[in-house]
Amino acid sequence: MKLTQRVKKILSWYESDCPGTKANLARILMQGRLGGSGKLVILPVDQGFEHGPARSFAPNPPAYDPHYHFQLAVDAGLSAYASVLGMLEAGADTFAGQIPLILKVNSANSLQGAKDQAVTASVQDALRLGCSAIGFTIYPGSDDAYAMMEEIREMAEEAKACGLAVVVWSYPRGGKLSKDGETAIDVTAYAAHMAALLGAHIIKVKPPTAFIEHEAKKVYEKQKIDVGTLAARILHVMQASFNGRRIVVFSGGAAKETAGILDEIRALRDGGANGSIIGRNTFQRPREEALKLLDEVIKIYQGKA
Amino acid sequence: MKLTQRVKKILSWYESDCPGTKANLARILMQGRLGGSGKLVILPVDQGFEHGPARSFAPNPPAYDPHYHFQLAVDAGLSAYASVLGMLEAGADTFAGQIPLILKVNSANSLQGAKDQAVTASVQDALRLGCSAIGFTIYPGSDDAYAMMEEIREMAEEAKACGLAVVVWSYPRGGKLSKDGETAIDVTAYAAHMAALLGAHIIKVKPPTAFIEHEAKKVYEKQKIDVGTLAARILHVMQASFNGRRIVVFSGGAAKETAGILDEIRALRDGGANGSIIGRNTFQRPREEALKLLDEVIKIYQGKA
Amino acid sequence: MKLTQRVKKILSWYESDCPGTKANLARILMQGRLGGSGKLVILPVDQGFEHGPARSFAPNPPAYDPHYHFQLAVDAGLSAYASVLGMLEAGADTFAGQIPLILKVNSANSLQGAKDQAVTASVQDALRLGCSAIGFTIYPGSDDAYAMMEEIREMAEEAKACGLAVVVWSYPRGGKLSKDGETAIDVTAYAAHMAALLGAHIIKVKPPTAFIEHEAKKVYEKQKIDVGTLAARILHVMQASFNGRRIVVFSGGAAKETAGILDEIRALRDGGANGSIIGRNTFQRPREEALKLLDEVIKIYQGKA
Amino acid sequence: MKLTQRVKKILSWYESDCPGTKANLARILMQGRLGGSGKLVILPVDQGFEHGPARSFAPNPPAYDPHYHFQLAVDAGLSAYASVLGMLEAGADTFAGQIPLILKVNSANSLQGAKDQAVTASVQDALRLGCSAIGFTIYPGSDDAYAMMEEIREMAEEAKACGLAVVVWSYPRGGKLSKDGETAIDVTAYAAHMAALLGAHIIKVKPPTAFIEHEAKKVYEKQKIDVGTLAARILHVMQASFNGRRIVVFSGGAAKETAGILDEIRALRDGGANGSIIGRNTFQRPREEALKLLDEVIKIYQGKA
Amino acid sequence: MKLTQRVKKILSWYESDCPGTKANLARILMQGRLGGSGKLVILPVDQGFEHGPARSFAPNPPAYDPHYHFQLAVDAGLSAYASVLGMLEAGADTFAGQIPLILKVNSANSLQGAKDQAVTASVQDALRLGCSAIGFTIYPGSDDAYAMMEEIREMAEEAKACGLAVVVWSYPRGGKLSKDGETAIDVTAYAAHMAALLGAHIIKVKPPTAFIEHEAKKVYEKQKIDVGTLAARILHVMQASFNGRRIVVFSGGAAKETAGILDEIRALRDGGANGSIIGRNTFQRPREEALKLLDEVIKIYQGKA
Repeated sequence: MKLTQRVKKILSWYESDCPGTKANLARILMQGRLGGSGKLVILPVDQGFEHGPARSFAPNPPAYDPHYHFQLAVDAGLSAYASVLGMLEAGADTFAGQIPLILKVNSANSLQGAKDQAVTASVQDALRLGCSAIGFTIYPGSDDAYAMMEEIREMAEEAKACGLAVVVWSYPRGGKLSKDGETAIDVTAYAAHMAALLGAHIIKVKPPTAFIEHEAKKVYEKQKIDVGTLAARILHVMQASFNGRRIVVFSGGAAKETAGILDEIRALRDGGANGSIIGRNTFQRPREEALKLLDEVIKIYQGKA
Repeated sequence: MKLTQRVKKILSWYESDCPGTKANLARILMQGRLGGSGKLVILPVDQGFEHGPARSFAPNPPAYDPHYHFQLAVDAGLSAYASVLGMLEAGADTFAGQIPLILKVNSANSLQGAKDQAVTASVQDALRLGCSAIGFTIYPGSDDAYAMMEEIREMAEEAKACGLAVVVWSYPRGGKLSKDGETAIDVTAYAAHMAALLGAHIIKVKPPTAFIEHEAKKVYEKQKIDVGTLAARILHVMQASFNGRRIVVFSGGAAKETAGILDEIRALRDGGANGSIIGRNTFQRPREEALKLLDEVIKIYQGKA
Repeated sequence: MKLTQRVKKILSWYESDCPGTKANLARILMQGRLGGSGKLVILPVDQGFEHGPARSFAPNPPAYDPHYHFQLAVDAGLSAYASVLGMLEAGADTFAGQIPLILKVNSANSLQGAKDQAVTASVQDALRLGCSAIGFTIYPGSDDAYAMMEEIREMAEEAKACGLAVVVWSYPRGGKLSKDGETAIDVTAYAAHMAALLGAHIIKVKPPTAFIEHEAKKVYEKQKIDVGTLAARILHVMQASFNGRRIVVFSGGAAKETAGILDEIRALRDGGANGSIIGRNTFQRPREEALKLLDEVIKIYQGKA
Repeated sequence: MKLTQRVKKILSWYESDCPGTKANLARILMQGRLGGSGKLVILPVDQGFEHGPARSFAPNPPAYDPHYHFQLAVDAGLSAYASVLGMLEAGADTFAGQIPLILKVNSANSLQGAKDQAVTASVQDALRLGCSAIGFTIYPGSDDAYAMMEEIREMAEEAKACGLAVVVWSYPRGGKLSKDGETAIDVTAYAAHMAALLGAHIIKVKPPTAFIEHEAKKVYEKQKIDVGTLAARILHVMQASFNGRRIVVFSGGAAKETAGILDEIRALRDGGANGSIIGRNTFQRPREEALKLLDEVIKIYQGKA
Repeated sequence: MKLTQRVKKILSWYESDCPGTKANLARILMQGRLGGSGKLVILPVDQGFEHGPARSFAPNPPAYDPHYHFQLAVDAGLSAYASVLGMLEAGADTFAGQIPLILKVNSANSLQGAKDQAVTASVQDALRLGCSAIGFTIYPGSDDAYAMMEEIREMAEEAKACGLAVVVWSYPRGGKLSKDGETAIDVTAYAAHMAALLGAHIIKVKPPTAFIEHEAKKVYEKQKIDVGTLAARILHVMQASFNGRRIVVFSGGAAKETAGILDEIRALRDGGANGSIIGRNTFQRPREEALKLLDEVIKIYQGKA
């Protein structure tokens, strides 16, 4: 596999990593229809854990089958497939070598009230399943945030020593954060920055709103940071992610109609995002509709739409 | 031992497991009168820990003796015998090689108020006692659920690396769950799904009622998921268990009269359950009655009743 | 040392244990005047930790000296001497090979309010001091019971792997238990059963009263379990201890007058107890009186009184 | 590199350390424009974690780029650059060998309420990134202070065994401390002393005020300890740091105007401080202004201003 | 070094210890002017941690320097010098081989409210600094007492395996203890006894008052235990310490005038104490006064005053 200049450039940002980790990042960046472009679209399926099987898969029953998602990610020409232990165990052998895998190593569920997650898989699991990366969620602001940071610190160190890449889902919530604050532009930029400081190779945050949580407000005003459009806000998040030296992908959020999704993707692209991680909006639609949607998303990142 | 096509098919679902673990699953699936059929009936004796010796064994005093249960499971032609450390230590040598053993590695007792269990045995114990699997209970919804999930994650990883299978008892309770919610169809399906996501090879849940806990209710209505009969509900639980790619067995619950038990077993079979795990309804009856009941249960799973 | 048939029989109950552990059980069972009979009397000296030195030893000042207790156990022809780390360190070399030692590895003290104990010694300590067993107290029912069970699980596994035996003091208290419930027959039988399930080789409980804690009451009535005499209750406790497949010894409790003690011992013997573990009633008397009392106790177990 | 007499003298204070640790201390002490003088100025960039990216870097946007800070520290002729994991990972290879690095291994963030920090990097991380030291913050007085001390104890032992130096940020706060007490002279001297007792090679505290927290007040009065000027207070802090046998540097605190900074630096120098650790006052200014300020600071420590 | 009969006798009490530990006990017992007599005087300097540098050292400023204390202990002909990590690191090389060192491995500070201590050094630290023993404080009665006991259990096991001796500071406080109870004779005897049970070689307690905390009161009255004079109370504490089979030293407490100190030392001697551990009363005086005081103390233990 011959790397493109763009991918070589991106790999150069990860200057302290071992060749094994760079090779796994390269696998993700060279995979699928966006391979080589420096852009990426990832299919994440952790909704079953988070919201239960019926809320996740009943809208499109074939998605109850773990193989469905592997095949969808392969057929849509995506960059990687991210899921939890059982889901990957049930298909990793059948689809070995077909698409890079990201093992989500901690998980929450909606029966629990705590703003925390359980560690549900290990770096060793990622290695035996042939994954390219581990994925970990932190909840900055929650009472358990420091404990979660210490968990990912330990797992990230182990992953890097084993040549794996590290993806951090950085979702502020809990503690003294307001509900609006969870997706506020200042908080989202802070969340992305902390993921970078914790040593993440790929950062996942939610598209931020123009709301600003109090503490940082006067800085945003004084420094005239543009938060007026989604594209401007994305630009700010990328800046907060080591001035673009880290890959940042944005989640799609709750299922919504197609036009809204595509408009959002365009703004992400215009703001310089590295890509998207889209779950419910794909696997909850019939397969053909999902493939069509992903085709349009990819075209946007290719600059063709 | 020549495997049947059905057992080979089932083993193929566990595509990421090592040969040792597959061999242990095969031992359970090929054992006893249901051997080779893909169905299984397991004898579990953890009632002594959960409810004390008198409430468990006084109705049938020979059952105070650990050897009684090994012999019952062997004579009834069951698939496996599951119990806690002391019970297996007291008979594992005498009955070595006669029936696959499942070591229940955590236990609750009725003197304690916490919705938690103590880890009371290890993977190493399972190995030295010649067991085929470890068994572990999680209480989704309880305040300790994340801690329990982290315990089974660690023990399951160790068990799989040692060639053992992993059985998860997934019993929702505590936290914000209502009493009815503990056996609600949506919660039971969610509980089975989480056990699968945690990497269980065999999942044990309770037969669900038609009750639906609030959050998922509108999905069940909108998607017209059939929960009207026990068989329909079992079908839904199997779907939630990786669309049937995981073995799911259902508990018998509190002791009741024979006709009720057999009707329930028929519904389990009709819904596609892999089998039953029946404790109090067998060892609390005189041995001959228990053997007769188990004979009828097995015949139902054989399609002969 | 040639084992008696009775001791061979008892060892056969511990069928999953390694030869090292069986040899240590045999050492205890073959020691002293009851050696070979399957009965045993153990001297425990953990009162200094539990109640302080003055309350323990001032009634008989020579007992302040750790050597005193070793010598007493040897001279009385007892089966074993059980004590805490410092006490054994202070005499293990002088009395090496003279009497089997049980290292009590956790301890409470009366300055503390918590219904818990501190782990105060290790399996490694037991090995370096030449002990035959470790001893551990659990408090079923207390808020810390699960944590205590997890501690003994871990230490018992290590002890068994090193060829040591495991003695569990199972003393219900705390949580929702009433004061009377702590020695209720149903709770005591449950406590003994749990110790057996946790893998104890020797179980120590208190002689139970006829009181029945609520939950199990209807079972005792329905099954007509005889709890009318101490002997009948002991029989029930032995039944709850794997139908007699585990060694169970009973504590002597608070210091009392001689006739009362001997009557209780007779009831223990008649109920099938394996023996007694008597501390305060011996070391708080002048040495000659203690030797005389122990002589009478032994004669009762020998069937001579 | 030939060491100066002054540096040799300083190294002699660390008489129990291995040659590896002394070599790393020497690297810091011999680096930059103050190299060899026994004085040092360190650039710390952990503000992104503590206050978020916008509050830290928006005043001088080039500072969003991790490389910016390495280059600033090199170009200003500083003694070392201290930052958190992600920041060092992003530049350690490009700037390898150009300036000694201090890996800050724990971090707080302003979304959290707890007076604690998360461990966010390891000694192993420091080694693989080619660092000369680890940095760790303790909050004496906070509810988590003992836990933080136990963390640095463990990490310091590991660091010293690997030939790294240990820098402790000792910032009293929380518990029963008043707000004024956090920078009180008695509390600051105590904080520096505890860092020394914990085995720190380099201690970082804030410049103390003349306020005295109650408990020690009568001692200060009776012993007539001079706390009237900043220089006198610095002298007292140095005395509390093993009578000058430990390197102590003082933080610059919140951004302020140039004259105020330089006056403070002069007082630090006059009091015998080993140097300064200046973050926000440098990287939040345009690069040329920052270089000019640092030039003046260095001249003060050189005795030229 | 030829041991005296008295020292050989004392070593014989530690019959379970390895030669390495006995050699370190011998080093302490043979050191200084009391060498060989079975008596010892130790200089402890942990006041800086406990009360801060100014309250500890401002009364005698040369004591800010760690070397001061080593030299004082050597020049006074003491038996050992006990201090915390940083203090020993700063002088262990200069004074190597001149006086036995005891590394205090846990420490409290007066900014903290919790009745606990942080572990601030390790057995490995003690070994690399050439120490003869570790020192550890427990607070019997406090909410954290069991946790502290578990810490010293683990560290003592490691220390003994490495040939070090173990010194336990046993200071009752917290929980349900009254303020007077902290130094009550029954509580002090209990504290010394627990230190012995935990495996301490040398026990440090405070000189007890005649006050008796309630629970044990009737035993003291019934058994007519003499607590009327300090000498009688010391005798009782020695009895509680394995009837004199353990070395017990008594602290000097708060700084006071000379006559009072010497009277107390005489009572300690008359009661059979092994010696004293005197900190503030020595290093807070001018060096010449301290040497004079220590000379008188030593003469008392020599029976010359």
